[in-house]
Amino acid sequence: MTARFLALYETPADAAAFGRHHREVHIPLGRRLPGLRRYTVSRAVTPVRGAPCYLVAELDWDTMDDLRAAFASPEGRATADDAAHLGDLAPARSMIFTADDA
Amino acid sequence: MTARFLALYETPADAAAFGRHHREVHIPLGRRLPGLRRYTVSRAVTPVRGAPCYLVAELDWDTMDDLRAAFASPEGRATADDAAHLGDLAPARSMIFTADDA
Repeated sequence: MTARFLALYETPADAAAFGRHHREVHIPLGRRLPGLRRYTVSRAVTPVRGAPCYLVAELDWDTMDDLRAAFASPEGRATADDAAHLGDLAPARSMIFTADDA
Repeated sequence: MTARFLALYETPADAAAFGRHHREVHIPLGRRLPGLRRYTVSRAVTPVRGAPCYLVAELDWDTMDDLRAAFASPEGRATADDAAHLGDLAPARSMIFTADDA
């Protein structure tokens, strides 16, 4: 069982500006989230079915309570504020779920 | 580093038929994929930004070569054939990428 936040970004109009902000501002903010167990970012997304996606980010916590506490923390609010800015650079879709072993 | 296959399903027209086929046919096929390290399926997806998503499935391999070998295997072809049927029950978007630690 993993509590996961998943964000999918569509192709940005300005890939250089998106990449720079994501790498230099957003990832460092995300890394500071309390209780974070794993934070991965995609490299080279290849579409299989449906429209291509530009970048996939996944942040894992042990429990949904831990995830919620991280989002409610000062670090979580700073990351959410920055995500709104990042969303101006590339359309994004994000969600939270419990990932159960199949 | 993880080689990951990610599938996102939109809300099916017939949730019961989709759930039954996914649970009874598709997951058992996916579990047989060679070299598979982890297979998770979402429970209770909560949207944060953008449109809600119905179900998220993620399958992990150690390397992209392992993932490609699994897809090319008889088990991989059977799973892909079944995914096409599952895609008739719910619109899906899927992709492959390397997930690097941020």
